[in-house]
Amino acid sequence: MPALNETHDLNLTSWVASANDAQCDFPIQNLPFAAFRRQGSDEAFRGGVAIGDQIVDLAAAKATGVFSGLAQTAAEACAAPRLNDFMGMGKEAWSALRLALSQALRSGSAAEAQLSACLVAQAEAEYDLPCTIGDYTDFYTSVFHATTVGSLFRPDNPLLPNYKWVPIGYHGRSSSIDVSGQSFHRPKGQTKAPDAAEPSFGPCKRLDYELEMGIYIGKGTDLGDTIALDSADDHVFGLCLFNDWSARDIQAWEYQPLGPFLAKNFASTVSPWIVTTEALAPYRTAWSRDEADPQPLPYLESETNRAEGAIDIQLEVLLESDKMRAEGQGAAKLSESSFVHSYWTVAQMVAHHTVNGCNMKPGDFFGSGTQSGPTHDEAGSMLELSLGGKQPITLANGETRTFLEDGDAVIMRGHCQKEGAARIGFGEVVGTVLPAKA
Amino acid sequence: MPALNETHDLNLTSWVASANDAQCDFPIQNLPFAAFRRQGSDEAFRGGVAIGDQIVDLAAAKATGVFSGLAQTAAEACAAPRLNDFMGMGKEAWSALRLALSQALRSGSAAEAQLSACLVAQAEAEYDLPCTIGDYTDFYTSVFHATTVGSLFRPDNPLLPNYKWVPIGYHGRSSSIDVSGQSFHRPKGQTKAPDAAEPSFGPCKRLDYELEMGIYIGKGTDLGDTIALDSADDHVFGLCLFNDWSARDIQAWEYQPLGPFLAKNFASTVSPWIVTTEALAPYRTAWSRDEADPQPLPYLESETNRAEGAIDIQLEVLLESDKMRAEGQGAAKLSESSFVHSYWTVAQMVAHHTVNGCNMKPGDFFGSGTQSGPTHDEAGSMLELSLGGKQPITLANGETRTFLEDGDAVIMRGHCQKEGAARIGFGEVVGTVLPAKA
Repeated sequence: MPALNETHDLNLTSWVASANDAQCDFPIQNLPFAAFRRQGSDEAFRGGVAIGDQIVDLAAAKATGVFSGLAQTAAEACAAPRLNDFMGMGKEAWSALRLALSQALRSGSAAEAQLSACLVAQAEAEYDLPCTIGDYTDFYTSVFHATTVGSLFRPDNPLLPNYKWVPIGYHGRSSSIDVSGQSFHRPKGQTKAPDAAEPSFGPCKRLDYELEMGIYIGKGTDLGDTIALDSADDHVFGLCLFNDWSARDIQAWEYQPLGPFLAKNFASTVSPWIVTTEALAPYRTAWSRDEADPQPLPYLESETNRAEGAIDIQLEVLLESDKMRAEGQGAAKLSESSFVHSYWTVAQMVAHHTVNGCNMKPGDFFGSGTQSGPTHDEAGSMLELSLGGKQPITLANGETRTFLEDGDAVIMRGHCQKEGAARIGFGEVVGTVLPAKA
Repeated sequence: MPALNETHDLNLTSWVASANDAQCDFPIQNLPFAAFRRQGSDEAFRGGVAIGDQIVDLAAAKATGVFSGLAQTAAEACAAPRLNDFMGMGKEAWSALRLALSQALRSGSAAEAQLSACLVAQAEAEYDLPCTIGDYTDFYTSVFHATTVGSLFRPDNPLLPNYKWVPIGYHGRSSSIDVSGQSFHRPKGQTKAPDAAEPSFGPCKRLDYELEMGIYIGKGTDLGDTIALDSADDHVFGLCLFNDWSARDIQAWEYQPLGPFLAKNFASTVSPWIVTTEALAPYRTAWSRDEADPQPLPYLESETNRAEGAIDIQLEVLLESDKMRAEGQGAAKLSESSFVHSYWTVAQMVAHHTVNGCNMKPGDFFGSGTQSGPTHDEAGSMLELSLGGKQPITLANGETRTFLEDGDAVIMRGHCQKEGAARIGFGEVVGTVLPAKA
């Protein structure tokens, strides 16, 4: 795994007591970034770092004198409403600020008095997108999702011949990406039933979620430059949870030959917190390719990628219906999966995306593609769980679903956990389906 | 056609003498916008308007007192390095500035003394992107291109069943769009020959251009809002020329099932000048659909769109090779076409793109798709001209091409012209292929 340092030490505790709970997503070893302000205020959004159930307000912290040198410069960049400038500073600056925060937040730190005045409770915060997303690319890295969905869209040809050679990706829409809490009207569009002579127009009938990881580019590149596989960590600022809402009936009719369009660009939702590449270091793990499968071309192959290219992130999806909300029932779990199943690693996505010279800008965003696991109950979309809408699933309270209904909120959570390392949580991403506009 | 006003009057002349040449792209009836500065200077880029062979520097002009009211507010917005704020102000502001410029630039205007001090010769200028392009969408609106290319990529299934119902589009990459003068290295990538067992990696062997119109969104919308067909003109700021460079061999191997990706995102080039929707009003013309074809669904159908949805823009593509450059030969014409052949109108693209609630931001950009005409010699790509690379084309100087070679510059020009209206030119877009990086 990548080099660990004092910030990863399992034994560290914080003077922010809530961070020391073993089940907390945001212990002192995590330190993820978001853009926040106090709920309902007209304050400017600014960068913050999660610690326990609190947020370190970096716009306030930069003025305390707690940080110095590169960490201070980085903290100043984080005072902006969006974190693009900080993300573009690169790994050295990211690490310097992480180390300074880790030291200042530790039990016994002399900075406690100054930084405790910079805390805002997460319960009192609201979030914005952490950065301006210039370009958004969606990958398709779960071979299980690709095979299952392929069999629904193309029964005779589920997994195309390029899949095991090319980290398949396509461009998505940035403008409609919003942060957790997003609600959106059920999209309308053209659909055509297989037996209909002509398409018709109306609200989507097969609305779905997709359980994905989001990947933020930090340091950019110039047009014509490539990012080698083993340099990807210099450019990937961090990861979040991502719900790539999908209108399956619109998608089926529109997607050939140039790919999904209106089926995807009505809404996409990210979790507020970016968990940094550095925080995830203890959870990097071996990546392998079945012997029977094609092995990667040289630009997608390295010893380091084999040794530590994968990341073991546990994921879950829950649904909260109007009824559950009204009756005070908890949300119902739909599935669990893990990012470790990804057929291609984050580094392979980055190397592939830039091998033709495509330039990256700080804040550019990748979706991993739906992270379905190898078994049916690990499916990352309702399309898969309901076998293309043919077999309704039964929720914990007895309701059934083949696709999403109005009022449904979809909740995704993720975390890393293992012996000998601190839990690294992602928090959650929530989004809610509103009825189609009249 | 849309209402004409005094700015369209054919009889207007300008005190900028070069604007009065009948073959000039930029007479006083045009007044297109760009972002420019003096070549080789470190001046800030700012908005400018073309008049004859000159540019009105709007950062300078706003300080002259020539404009007032909304026109002055608009001119102030144009003093920024990029025009997004001005474009987002909407039609009333665009029209106010156009009218004020038209009046100030007319022969006999009292503003001549002040504005003549704000002129910069186009020969001494360099350009930037006119605005920050948040999202870029590429459409596919030539049925001739779609049929020909479809027959090359899918011989048994050239035009898919959705084509005549759905204005097919897909998301593109914004970061690699640059302004005319862009040069880029031949992209590398995975390709697979039809008879090869496995893909291989290397420089693209089938590099191509695509002759497109570019469409800039001005006034934006919120997520969930739609733009009705007959409101599209309120949102479309203007048009430019657009070369959507394409790596055909990479495209063929990667594009299924999610669309073109690395085959397109290594470079895309726009012309510097945005010709406004208002300037194009005299060239709006009837749009029709063959009786034998499906007629548009209601959200894509209106009397106004039938009456004036199309725009008659004459287009041409030329190639200048290293040899032509070295020997001082002119560029060789490859083809001529017209935007009037488009199967879907700009308004239909806008209405379709937003019918699901997808939001638009000022500066968002659409490509029209390759504007091939009905005959072979009107093809808008070399893929079509060379019948998929099977039949080399012979250039004016005797060189041959199946696809682009290193050193080739591709030049696209466009203009509107007819009896009773002033010529409205687009200038040109030029881009040059450099050898693949080692």
